[in-house]
Amino acid sequence: MSDNKFAEVSQEALLKIFTIPEAPDSTLGRIEKHLSENLMGFLGERIVAREKPLHEIEQKFNASQIPEEPRYVSDHTEFLLNNLVAHSVNTASPRFIGHMTSALPYFLLPLAKLMVGLNQNLVKIETSKAFTPLERNVLGMLHHLVYQQDDSFYQHWMHSAQHSLGAMCSGGTVANMTALWVARNLLLKPDEQFAGIAAEGLAAGLAHYGYRRLTVMVSERGHYSLGKAADVLGIGRRNLIAIPADEHNRIRVDELRKACAEVVADGGHVLAIVGVAGTTETGHIDPLNELADVAEEVGAFFHVDAAWGGATLLSKNHRHLLAGIERADSVTIDAHKQMYVPMGAGMVLFKDPSMVRAIEHHAEYIIRHGSKDLGAHTLEGSRPGMAMLIYSALHVMGRRGFELLIDQSIARAQMFASLIAEQDDFEVITEPELCILTYRFVPTRVKQLIQDATPEQVRRITPHLNALTRFIQKRQRETGRSFVSRTKLTPSQYYREPTVVFRVVLANPLTTKEMLVEVLQEQREIAAQAMSLRGALHTELRELGLLRDAALR
Amino acid sequence: MSDNKFAEVSQEALLKIFTIPEAPDSTLGRIEKHLSENLMGFLGERIVAREKPLHEIEQKFNASQIPEEPRYVSDHTEFLLNNLVAHSVNTASPRFIGHMTSALPYFLLPLAKLMVGLNQNLVKIETSKAFTPLERNVLGMLHHLVYQQDDSFYQHWMHSAQHSLGAMCSGGTVANMTALWVARNLLLKPDEQFAGIAAEGLAAGLAHYGYRRLTVMVSERGHYSLGKAADVLGIGRRNLIAIPADEHNRIRVDELRKACAEVVADGGHVLAIVGVAGTTETGHIDPLNELADVAEEVGAFFHVDAAWGGATLLSKNHRHLLAGIERADSVTIDAHKQMYVPMGAGMVLFKDPSMVRAIEHHAEYIIRHGSKDLGAHTLEGSRPGMAMLIYSALHVMGRRGFELLIDQSIARAQMFASLIAEQDDFEVITEPELCILTYRFVPTRVKQLIQDATPEQVRRITPHLNALTRFIQKRQRETGRSFVSRTKLTPSQYYREPTVVFRVVLANPLTTKEMLVEVLQEQREIAAQAMSLRGALHTELRELGLLRDAALR
Repeated sequence: MSDNKFAEVSQEALLKIFTIPEAPDSTLGRIEKHLSENLMGFLGERIVAREKPLHEIEQKFNASQIPEEPRYVSDHTEFLLNNLVAHSVNTASPRFIGHMTSALPYFLLPLAKLMVGLNQNLVKIETSKAFTPLERNVLGMLHHLVYQQDDSFYQHWMHSAQHSLGAMCSGGTVANMTALWVARNLLLKPDEQFAGIAAEGLAAGLAHYGYRRLTVMVSERGHYSLGKAADVLGIGRRNLIAIPADEHNRIRVDELRKACAEVVADGGHVLAIVGVAGTTETGHIDPLNELADVAEEVGAFFHVDAAWGGATLLSKNHRHLLAGIERADSVTIDAHKQMYVPMGAGMVLFKDPSMVRAIEHHAEYIIRHGSKDLGAHTLEGSRPGMAMLIYSALHVMGRRGFELLIDQSIARAQMFASLIAEQDDFEVITEPELCILTYRFVPTRVKQLIQDATPEQVRRITPHLNALTRFIQKRQRETGRSFVSRTKLTPSQYYREPTVVFRVVLANPLTTKEMLVEVLQEQREIAAQAMSLRGALHTELRELGLLRDAALR
Repeated sequence: MSDNKFAEVSQEALLKIFTIPEAPDSTLGRIEKHLSENLMGFLGERIVAREKPLHEIEQKFNASQIPEEPRYVSDHTEFLLNNLVAHSVNTASPRFIGHMTSALPYFLLPLAKLMVGLNQNLVKIETSKAFTPLERNVLGMLHHLVYQQDDSFYQHWMHSAQHSLGAMCSGGTVANMTALWVARNLLLKPDEQFAGIAAEGLAAGLAHYGYRRLTVMVSERGHYSLGKAADVLGIGRRNLIAIPADEHNRIRVDELRKACAEVVADGGHVLAIVGVAGTTETGHIDPLNELADVAEEVGAFFHVDAAWGGATLLSKNHRHLLAGIERADSVTIDAHKQMYVPMGAGMVLFKDPSMVRAIEHHAEYIIRHGSKDLGAHTLEGSRPGMAMLIYSALHVMGRRGFELLIDQSIARAQMFASLIAEQDDFEVITEPELCILTYRFVPTRVKQLIQDATPEQVRRITPHLNALTRFIQKRQRETGRSFVSRTKLTPSQYYREPTVVFRVVLANPLTTKEMLVEVLQEQREIAAQAMSLRGALHTELRELGLLRDAALR
């Protein structure tokens, strides 16, 4: 097409795409209708709709140049359907129990479309208006959930321009980073001789206050985002000190005290102690009250990473598990985890609404001094109005609705743990405290043996079991009927030998006992096919003198 | 309701919200239909649907406690409609020309709903599968747009596990921060005696390499996110050195060279030089080739913040304005700005796909070594599949479609600049290079006077004009028929006197000349009402001996 002709034809077509919606009977209209009517059925029964290796999918996404010519929406939608949607992961499936994504309440879908269509930018009032008070309201409600201040506290601070009860962000990683940023800037604050770390930088701050280094202390089960935050903030990953966990994956407070003393003795300063309320891998909760005590003793900032477990506070029956969280200076909660909101709804809450002054920033054209623009206290700049979806979830489900979901998830995890324990050929590695547990497949004979095995025997058997667990997890994922994830732990019952385990997160309200039985059955069947791995385990057991039978059942 | 009864009733209701979509004739169904059919009409003609002060809106968002009981979706939706949507900002309106949000192409709305419903998490393949190759493809296409490597380059790197052509993120702020994070970690890299800054921290890195401080150099028109990045990364805001801009708001390269020399003479090191390709306030582009030269001379990382202007590369007619961008080590582009994608679609591109190794991180349960998980090279963790919307926009509109949009936006800005210049009582302060320009209202008599005024006269008149501009901008925003933003510049034609200006961004394809005429007329009418401000200006002019008439027209 000649350039003039193109411009002429396209001018009209372009204005059309900004003014005329897709017809209901267009391809996109039909897909949307199908999706709206049956989200679960949309991706079919399988986790990954078709078994297809990644490199084949990559071939469809291999063009390095932006296409020159426009394309019909319907053609493009067909392409997406066949090449993207068909090979997406059905994270809402009740058989997808490997990660923290779960089914979404239906009403959030049209609301999400509304949110995207409104296209508000929460960085400033001028592009959000009512969305700003709404976001401050959501932060207030979540702050109350954690800190339970009285109503006058919230009337005073919730909508105050110079203060924030927290900061919304895309996810727990940015939330944790924001918390440690605040902690760092509060510690190395301005004084008469020093303009503060925000202005002068970290090296100047350390020199001024006479600290050789700053450290952040967290259990060895802490989330990897803390290491990333330590890197970004200039603290350094080696100064994120991993404290050993006990047999229940909770931080050992005696070890923490010891490590803090060493840091101080060495000329360093403990910037922050991070409690984990729901470890990513095992769902366990640190003893938060004890951590608060230690933080007070050593003068450290106390942050709680409750990205996963924070929603437990919505259940009166289980909120006691997080006792002490109200003593934290800051708390991370991800609404896109156990609050059933779509991806992108993280937040950090601050006990003291003036803490955010440590990271306050302004510009001439937005977030001016005295404005209520939320952007003055966030790590991110332009941000969508995700707070609306949290607000809606809280109102439509109510605290009691969430309580039911949380209680059921925990009950489901306990039920699955019992189910696993009853099997001859599976064992629970970490019991659930919330709705996460880990387990593995162990051939019947090995299950009998391993509980009394010596450290040396465990050391020699474990790598074979690890290979088997890896094999099963990968094969199950590829087959795509169900999905569990895997991780590597150092269980105390096995002399802290690095042990690969299946990890399941049982937050999807649609996951039934029958489905969990099927997950185990499928894993058992895959294990039966792993002839060479089982053979190697067999040989090892014979060499250890643990096996005299010919075959390993 | 008793607890047992509640549990019983709610159990069923809860499962329902996860399995049964809203009926098309429900309140939410009707709202969605209305929105789908007429996004523009949805918010009505006004920018802010009703004139209502913020504190009144805040009263609707004042509850500090999460509601106990669940609520009907329809009731909640009515509440949202009346209290949130009605007081949102119609950022898609062709009369909303104050910020970078514009109309959205319609087809992106159902696609966004699809994206939210799929709820993929791009941090790892296990929760995204085909979305991961798709995102890598989008990064590849944008990388090609900037760097124009040949096809074999992209075949080699686009889907390589240990490499990334860039990183998607929520927005330009995180993109700029990621770029400087990479730059910082590359400079203070590991060697035989040093484990690298990522491990050891910034102070140790500076000490090891013998730098007294690191600085980042950017024009005084640089985005405020760079200051935030300097704070977060531990560099310090004072070490973000603002270089004066010339009369066209472009960095003065002679001043930059001088400032770099001073940093080095003082024992510091220039970490990065940041070129701005489309300043936020005036839309001007730094001389990128010259900046690349300086960066080479001083051994600095060269980053280009093209969050706003990067999309200009899609136009063959205007891409020359960004000549030299291909020499940048990294480039920030926001697809939610001039690429017409909804909020939350930022990215940074890296010239060398192995640069991201400087920020690589892993965990046991995801982003394992050798996996293709995108999370290994991003500042954020869990992230939604926004790349899909960019991919779709690129394919449906095509490069030539974008070219038309970009070309028209620039033409529209030039047209508006001429229109303003023709008025007796308005003046252009910064001419458009892309589709941003600034201007202000000046009473006719003042417009005649001020161009020949002495520095002292300008110094005394400007505050009065500033107050008038502020008044008009606020009043216009509150009235809600149209919206321009405002900022403060230091125009060289007015002896760098701090000058408040209207700022307009003319990217909305639906904005017509008639609308722009109306914007000026409305501003003129508001100015006529500002009696006391005009009175004060009048008095000032008389005192300066510049006015002998009785009244100021």
